[in-house]
Amino acid sequence: MSGFAAVDVIAAKRDRQVLTDAQIDWTISSYTAGEVAEEQMSALLMAILLNGMTPGEIARWTAAMIASGIRLDLSGVGRPTVDKHSTGGVGDKISLPLAPLVAACGAAVPQLSGRGLGHTGGTLDKMESISGWTAGLSPAAMIRQLSDVGAVICAASADLAPADRKLYALRDVTATVESIPMIAASIMSKKIAEGTDALVLDVKVGSGAFMKSVDRARELARTMVDLGAAHDVRVSALLTDMSTPLGVAVGNAMEVAESVEVLAGGGPPDVVELTISLAREMVGLAGLDVDPAEVLASGAAMDSWRAMIAAQGGDPDFVLPRPKERHVVTAAADGVVTALDAHAVGVASWRLGAGRARKEDPIQAAAGVLCLAKPGAAVVVGQPLFELHTDTPERFDQALADLDGALHIAAPGTAVPHRVLVIDAVRG
Amino acid sequence: MSGFAAVDVIAAKRDRQVLTDAQIDWTISSYTAGEVAEEQMSALLMAILLNGMTPGEIARWTAAMIASGIRLDLSGVGRPTVDKHSTGGVGDKISLPLAPLVAACGAAVPQLSGRGLGHTGGTLDKMESISGWTAGLSPAAMIRQLSDVGAVICAASADLAPADRKLYALRDVTATVESIPMIAASIMSKKIAEGTDALVLDVKVGSGAFMKSVDRARELARTMVDLGAAHDVRVSALLTDMSTPLGVAVGNAMEVAESVEVLAGGGPPDVVELTISLAREMVGLAGLDVDPAEVLASGAAMDSWRAMIAAQGGDPDFVLPRPKERHVVTAAADGVVTALDAHAVGVASWRLGAGRARKEDPIQAAAGVLCLAKPGAAVVVGQPLFELHTDTPERFDQALADLDGALHIAAPGTAVPHRVLVIDAVRG
Repeated sequence: MSGFAAVDVIAAKRDRQVLTDAQIDWTISSYTAGEVAEEQMSALLMAILLNGMTPGEIARWTAAMIASGIRLDLSGVGRPTVDKHSTGGVGDKISLPLAPLVAACGAAVPQLSGRGLGHTGGTLDKMESISGWTAGLSPAAMIRQLSDVGAVICAASADLAPADRKLYALRDVTATVESIPMIAASIMSKKIAEGTDALVLDVKVGSGAFMKSVDRARELARTMVDLGAAHDVRVSALLTDMSTPLGVAVGNAMEVAESVEVLAGGGPPDVVELTISLAREMVGLAGLDVDPAEVLASGAAMDSWRAMIAAQGGDPDFVLPRPKERHVVTAAADGVVTALDAHAVGVASWRLGAGRARKEDPIQAAAGVLCLAKPGAAVVVGQPLFELHTDTPERFDQALADLDGALHIAAPGTAVPHRVLVIDAVRG
Repeated sequence: MSGFAAVDVIAAKRDRQVLTDAQIDWTISSYTAGEVAEEQMSALLMAILLNGMTPGEIARWTAAMIASGIRLDLSGVGRPTVDKHSTGGVGDKISLPLAPLVAACGAAVPQLSGRGLGHTGGTLDKMESISGWTAGLSPAAMIRQLSDVGAVICAASADLAPADRKLYALRDVTATVESIPMIAASIMSKKIAEGTDALVLDVKVGSGAFMKSVDRARELARTMVDLGAAHDVRVSALLTDMSTPLGVAVGNAMEVAESVEVLAGGGPPDVVELTISLAREMVGLAGLDVDPAEVLASGAAMDSWRAMIAAQGGDPDFVLPRPKERHVVTAAADGVVTALDAHAVGVASWRLGAGRARKEDPIQAAAGVLCLAKPGAAVVVGQPLFELHTDTPERFDQALADLDGALHIAAPGTAVPHRVLVIDAVRG
């Protein structure tokens, strides 16, 4: 393809013009091939972030990203396929209990995931706390596991939406991540290329999420639901609260342990509630008439979890790594927890070693923060509020500074409003 | 310097914040040192183009660009120094007669110039039509020539505002040239670093110029005048018409020939008028009480020109190169020329070989276009309208296509409004 100059495409978006289909196709394919330079794409991304895109431009951009690689064909799986994607939250381990639960309901869940960058953890990082478990599966092995077990959590292969891989790395260093068209195109190009029939989006809202306001979250959700429809993928979205962490555990191995508690019938109530809510949405899109709460209670989801671990080389009776050092923060006075800031907890956990600053950084499986007093809890002086875990105790001071002010404690007896976990739904 | 991340600076401007002095200083010095990546700077440039900068930010950005290199000290020259900068026009050879004219008036003109890119030619490209003449002078040689002759046209040394050199190349490929803060900072950082006491800006307006509207030209002029004041350089600006080419000749050697005509007391009336207008402005800023028109008529400017050529290795009695091929376009009917589009003529001349598409391209000294019928002229059928010159006649067809529609001819006797050459002035 030729006939365009990158500078003219950039100038068009700079001047608030609508890019043509041919301009978008040329830009994505030339960028993927290395013919549009990084500095040209970053100028275009900033112009898109500031001047926006029409729904038609977003749809074409997404289609071009899909066309930059292969689209998997999951028709041989023999079950309805339905996936879930979260925009990322602190303590968000929901994929771990959710995938086997929905599999136990009769669907197949092709959960292609990524590693974390920044203060929210990645699903693969969590699963890799399990010794022997591998994230790398061939497409054929993935399809076989989807047929046999019904659930797979693995790394996306490099030939799915390769344009997105380059774009994501560029957006990260050029302050162009927070563009709704680009977030939507990034998520949906990967999920559509993965070949799923249906998709439920968990769009996070609040201090620990990309989307700080419900309005922007709803706009992102609507954009993605429409992109799904344009590619014959049934999509719905739940807007869920991320002002405070999900559950108690924030950190890779700790979150695996908490997920197993949920599969065993226990676990923190917010994690259980969100798992069931997302599972109901997925099961509905898959056209299955079962109640995930009953399936969870039956123990069938735990069976699917164990089968999923074993199929990817892990020991279902795994023992998780333990941290070298722990530090407990206790309450200075009696009171009631009124707020716990998700972003601060995410940053503290990242600082302790649970996350990475650069994509080549190693992570500590056992590092993280246990949030022992969530909003609504009454606390008494001396009671543990946080437990910090790390293999590198020299990081405690900075993590404690990150947590300073994260927890608000009011006088004993103060009423705390009930947390609304599922704020809204956006459906096709 | 440290304490900043490029992504935070980009995000601040993306979010319409005012950059701090420390952020600006860090960004320019880190970019010059190669520590801020090209793709990060281009995202920042697009955010600046779209979200603007306050006068304070522009002043600091310019100061940081100056601080990226050396600032020349011209105090030893022994005459008041005053320079001229044009934002670039078609047929704009004014620097050639102007520098020696102002020198003959008693000032010193340190005209550090560039080569052309795109449809407007560069002053150095024009001067290099003169055999033996060299653009490369050491600062010491430049200062000596300013004392002895009073005028120098030469290349800017690489250690003047090196940040601008990198930024200019980046802006060119990322559609971020047309930002008033960046244009102003680029021009003024180089001119302030050059060490001149005073500066007259020729801000072009019209189809052949960057600034298509008088309002934007006035904004650019005001921004640059204020930047000068902040750095103790006396600056004034004339807004001048660039809807039609200046003079008859467009192309390097042809423009030298036309400049010599002006110095000899002849030349096209618009070139003479603008040369005198700019000279009056410069002489005024230099505090000299002489009339440039009288100095031009006296022949003293021609003497300064010959001395300036000789001082830089050229033969004052030079013979200019001639083109291998010529092609004449004649009038198809009688009429009156009502308009001649500067941009079309600039592109045709560039196409014939007078300009370059990439900075490493060679140029043809003899290529270009003679505009033989300017607006207001009555023409009769068969009369020459354009004469195209080139060493590569295979380019005639494309150049003729560029000129198609550039000249508007109305019925004989049609009244044509007088061209206002100097539209406005902006002074400190």
